[in-house]
Amino acid sequence: MSARILVVDDILPNVKVLEAKLTAEYFDVITAFDGAGALERAVADSPDVILLDVMMPGMDGFEVCRRLRQDPQTRHIPVVMVTALTDVSDRVRGLEAGADDFLSKPINDHALFARVRSLVRLKTLTDELRARQATAGSSELEDLGAEEALAGAHVLIVDAQQHRSQRIADQLRQAGHEVEIVGDAAEAMQRSQAEPALDLAIVHIDLSGQDGMRLCGQLRSQETTRQLPLLLVLDESDLPRLAKGLELGVSDYLIEPVDRNELRARVRTQLRRRRYYHRLRSLLDRTVSMAYTDPLTGAYNRRYLKAHLERKLMEMADSSKPVSIMLFDLDRFKLVNDELGHDAGDAVLKEVSQRVGNNVRSFDMLARYGGEEFVVIMPDTDAEHALAVADRLRRLIGEKRFGVPGRDEGLTVTFSAGVATATDPMETGDQLLKRADAALYEAKGGGRDRVVAARP
Amino acid sequence: MSARILVVDDILPNVKVLEAKLTAEYFDVITAFDGAGALERAVADSPDVILLDVMMPGMDGFEVCRRLRQDPQTRHIPVVMVTALTDVSDRVRGLEAGADDFLSKPINDHALFARVRSLVRLKTLTDELRARQATAGSSELEDLGAEEALAGAHVLIVDAQQHRSQRIADQLRQAGHEVEIVGDAAEAMQRSQAEPALDLAIVHIDLSGQDGMRLCGQLRSQETTRQLPLLLVLDESDLPRLAKGLELGVSDYLIEPVDRNELRARVRTQLRRRRYYHRLRSLLDRTVSMAYTDPLTGAYNRRYLKAHLERKLMEMADSSKPVSIMLFDLDRFKLVNDELGHDAGDAVLKEVSQRVGNNVRSFDMLARYGGEEFVVIMPDTDAEHALAVADRLRRLIGEKRFGVPGRDEGLTVTFSAGVATATDPMETGDQLLKRADAALYEAKGGGRDRVVAARP
Ligand SMILES: Nc1nc2c(ncn2[C@@H]2O[C@@H]3COP(=O)(O)O[C@H]4[C@@H](O)[C@H](n5cnc6c(=O)[nH]c(N)nc65)O[C@@H]4COP(=O)(O)O[C@H]3[C@H]2O)c(=O)[nH]1
Ligand SMILES: Nc1nc2c(ncn2[C@@H]2O[C@@H]3COP(=O)(O)O[C@H]4[C@@H](O)[C@H](n5cnc6c(=O)[nH]c(N)nc65)O[C@@H]4COP(=O)(O)O[C@H]3[C@H]2O)c(=O)[nH]1
Ligand SMILES: Nc1nc2c(ncn2[C@@H]2O[C@@H]3COP(=O)(O)O[C@H]4[C@@H](O)[C@H](n5cnc6c(=O)[nH]c(N)nc65)O[C@@H]4COP(=O)(O)O[C@H]3[C@H]2O)c(=O)[nH]1
Ligand SMILES: Nc1nc2c(ncn2[C@@H]2O[C@@H]3COP(=O)(O)O[C@H]4[C@@H](O)[C@H](n5cnc6c(=O)[nH]c(N)nc65)O[C@@H]4COP(=O)(O)O[C@H]3[C@H]2O)c(=O)[nH]1
Ligand SMILES: Nc1nc2c(ncn2[C@@H]2O[C@@H]3COP(=O)(O)O[C@H]4[C@@H](O)[C@H](n5cnc6c(=O)[nH]c(N)nc65)O[C@@H]4COP(=O)(O)O[C@H]3[C@H]2O)c(=O)[nH]1
Ligand SMILES: [Mg+2]
Ligand SMILES: [Mg+2]
Ligand SMILES: [Mg+2]
Repeated sequence: MSARILVVDDILPNVKVLEAKLTAEYFDVITAFDGAGALERAVADSPDVILLDVMMPGMDGFEVCRRLRQDPQTRHIPVVMVTALTDVSDRVRGLEAGADDFLSKPINDHALFARVRSLVRLKTLTDELRARQATAGSSELEDLGAEEALAGAHVLIVDAQQHRSQRIADQLRQAGHEVEIVGDAAEAMQRSQAEPALDLAIVHIDLSGQDGMRLCGQLRSQETTRQLPLLLVLDESDLPRLAKGLELGVSDYLIEPVDRNELRARVRTQLRRRRYYHRLRSLLDRTVSMAYTDPLTGAYNRRYLKAHLERKLMEMADSSKPVSIMLFDLDRFKLVNDELGHDAGDAVLKEVSQRVGNNVRSFDMLARYGGEEFVVIMPDTDAEHALAVADRLRRLIGEKRFGVPGRDEGLTVTFSAGVATATDPMETGDQLLKRADAALYEAKGGGRDRVVAARP
Repeated sequence: MSARILVVDDILPNVKVLEAKLTAEYFDVITAFDGAGALERAVADSPDVILLDVMMPGMDGFEVCRRLRQDPQTRHIPVVMVTALTDVSDRVRGLEAGADDFLSKPINDHALFARVRSLVRLKTLTDELRARQATAGSSELEDLGAEEALAGAHVLIVDAQQHRSQRIADQLRQAGHEVEIVGDAAEAMQRSQAEPALDLAIVHIDLSGQDGMRLCGQLRSQETTRQLPLLLVLDESDLPRLAKGLELGVSDYLIEPVDRNELRARVRTQLRRRRYYHRLRSLLDRTVSMAYTDPLTGAYNRRYLKAHLERKLMEMADSSKPVSIMLFDLDRFKLVNDELGHDAGDAVLKEVSQRVGNNVRSFDMLARYGGEEFVVIMPDTDAEHALAVADRLRRLIGEKRFGVPGRDEGLTVTFSAGVATATDPMETGDQLLKRADAALYEAKGGGRDRVVAARP
């Protein structure tokens, strides 16, 4: 995938060399020659990746990186520090300033394309998620910048040679990670599907006879490991094969013998990216479930109920299996609020929701319909059974007192319910709810704490 | 990116040839030899792409495709029909059965990798979106299967040669599309950023001197056109360059002279995929905004208010600019519901929300706090100005009657409001709301239809 790359270096020939290499690969290249220029271009042209020289007069690369990270407009753009210094402390400083990766000068083509392609691939995905989450102007996105501890990651090493894998494992364990070692592809595939989920796999290209890249291809082909960071370990002599590896989705690579600091740094950058992606994903997941659930009780909300009910009725029309619903309303609930306060009222609503939710089948659906009204949808359940369920739930609520704040002896809660069963394939969800509501009204009129079947 | 491919053909050597080609590219290949086997594998192994032979004894490819489309578990898996027949009617039948693309036997490697890679790339993205949307068990996802009309798409043709572009344009216009033609890359880039948004670009590889693939790279590097379908037009002799094109993100290609039916079919498959992606995206966008808005009024909901307010207060602590809030509650609203019905009540809530929303600044935020209570957050606004705004809004609501169903003369609505300004950086959102609430209580006690400033 092509992408826009911002190249920043104070030395013109350095910029030109990188520009030529990237342009030949059809990347879209923009350039800057100092820190101020870099910050300007980063905002104006929204590049996908920034290749950032460390040593520059005036503002150095570390400072540029820090400023990019402070600005919400540029915070999410991956930064690769380009450094002539092999000094480890510089890499650490780079990572602390918020860089995502680094390259050593003179720049090797393999390394360049490896870093850039893998950053672009992940960014395409995270941009898409960010854009979706941002639709509502969600201010929560900004919290994603916060850094989490990276220790304690689950790392799998796949290598047929004990002495190599053991050395890498020792170093990662020293860094605080949980490391497992397996010797071949089959074991690796098995572990990759098991719990706890892996955060990183380090795969040797040569699994005594088996091709390590084939294993990488298989991991990329599984839903569960499609986004798992993959570090390929290879010998200098295997470098010609690396291009294929990057194409199939390897995230980064290490050359044997693996340098201890290189290892830690590469592992760290992969884990950082993975965490970001995970945080973004779970934020979006939480947002999506908020759209469908009632914040107080965690039950589905009215909006979701309506959509779900229509769908179940359509399925019923196809399969001719009955669908029943139960609409129930807590008896004299206003008294709870008025006499014991809203906190007590809220506690009752939550516990009703929990008791009922745990006492119906998992494919039944509980929704909060309004203030103190709830609905249970029971697919594939006829009128007779639905009435029995409703009566079971009525006893479940009425027979055991509720604990509420400020009332030691607890509180007796009851409900009145109407149960309606859809048999006419033309009946809509609203009509079905209306019938249940009429039955509920009768239940209230008949003295409350009871279940009434709706008229067909 | 690697992926899992299911190859289906009744003739063993055909399966073996495809398997060998795909395996050499590190795809993970699974196979089936008839329709029943294909359906089984599709469910059990969730492939990313299915290459499906048309002519098979028993269940033919069209029928397999139709069944894959009926099953919610396999509906979203891209299907490429592989046909020995060059007959156009077969392609049409394939598309009608729900195929996403097709390949002609004998299979050309370029064509094979082009189709597979482009399907996998989009699927990675749509799988991610589907997974997010599915978090809450959203049943709405299933509606995405429904087919929309494909005519009326906005297609851009980029070619320096008038006679070629004109011929393609004529054919697409006959198919009901809106076609624009530009002669070079600069014009194309310009058009790509303008309205109406493009649905497809058809780019000739040779733009008299300019490299058409460079333009494709640039389009892929722009946020707005990253997912735009790109068809590359090239001569037989340009085929060696195609691999790079596919790598940079070209979606598919056409060989000059472009066959009329091939053109229509390729355009159609690209548009279908784009529509699917768009529908998925906007479903997720709607879902996200549902999470943050009140369904009745469209104002932000209480959940969003809380998060947003905390953030504004944190920003205030950094910048020491004041933040003010106004909490208002409609006067004697219960009477509206009781005397005129819930529909009238709902209409009032909606109109209040509209009037207020249109009369505060776009960075001010209106949220529905509860039944008939609303909050306006005013960043960078001190107490004196916030009181003036509150009083302007009070007049805006009180001075012009509301139209309600069943009451021709309309209805006078008023509110009582409390205004509080955060000055202490340690004050929380809840504390600020509490102060505003106390002021609101005073306003009610003082006779309603008034604004009261909160005590510090
Ligand atoms: N949608 C829905 N339908 C419900 C529910 N509860 C009961 N039913 C329906 O009512 C029938 C009779 O329930 P039962 O008298 O409790 O008699 C039940 C009960 O004694 C036992 N049983 C089945 N599943 C469970 C379960 O998950 N927990 C318990 N404790 N017993 C179960 O097996 C008997 C027969 O079960 P079925 O043949 O399935 O027949 C069930 C089913 O059709 C519910 O929560 N949701
Ligand atoms: N009286 C009665 N209660 C019902 C019935 N169906 C569901 N429930 C209530 O709803 C709970 C959750 O049901 P589940 O999701 O089907 O989850 C159930 C189900 O997966 C399984 N299970 C229990 N009994 C049976 C059974 O008789 N047949 C089947 N097929 N599964 C059962 O164990 C899970 C937990 O069961 P429980 O602890 O009993 O918890 C059950 C039970 O309290 C029913 O027919 N009659
Ligand atoms: N047209 C229209 N009117 C609205 C809307 N929201 C609120 N109202 C009106 O405002 C009334 C008063 O609401 P409340 O004082 O919260 O009085 C509530 C409250 O005490 C209790 N309640 C409802 N939901 C909750 C809850 O989540 N927690 C607690 N603790 N109590 C609740 O139930 C009471 C009775 O509710 P209602 O009879 O519905 O009476 C509601 C209803 O007439 C709306 O969206 N549209
Ligand atoms: N957050 C927020 N603050 C508000 C709002 N309305 C007024 N203010 C604050 O109150 C000050 C005085 O408002 P004004 O008397 O209407 O006096 C205003 C008004 O006459 C005019 N003005 C400014 N913007 C607008 C606008 O969007 N529409 C209209 N009609 N007049 C505007 O310029 C004057 C001075 O404006 P400022 O210096 O900005 O000073 C404004 C601003 O600080 C509001 O809806 N939200
Ligand atoms: N009396 C008063 N009302 C205010 C003030 N600020 C906002 N409003 C109300 O809120 C509406 C939307 O404000 P906006 O989003 O800033 O959107 C505003 C803003 O972008 C711009 N605008 C209007 N007047 C001014 C102004 O004096 N200064 C600035 N900077 N922009 C203005 O035009 C847009 C539409 O303006 P309106 O139709 O007036 O519509 C304004 C006006 O009804 C204010 O200070 N005083
Ligand atoms: Mg330098
Ligand atoms: Mg009630
Ligand atoms: Mg055949």
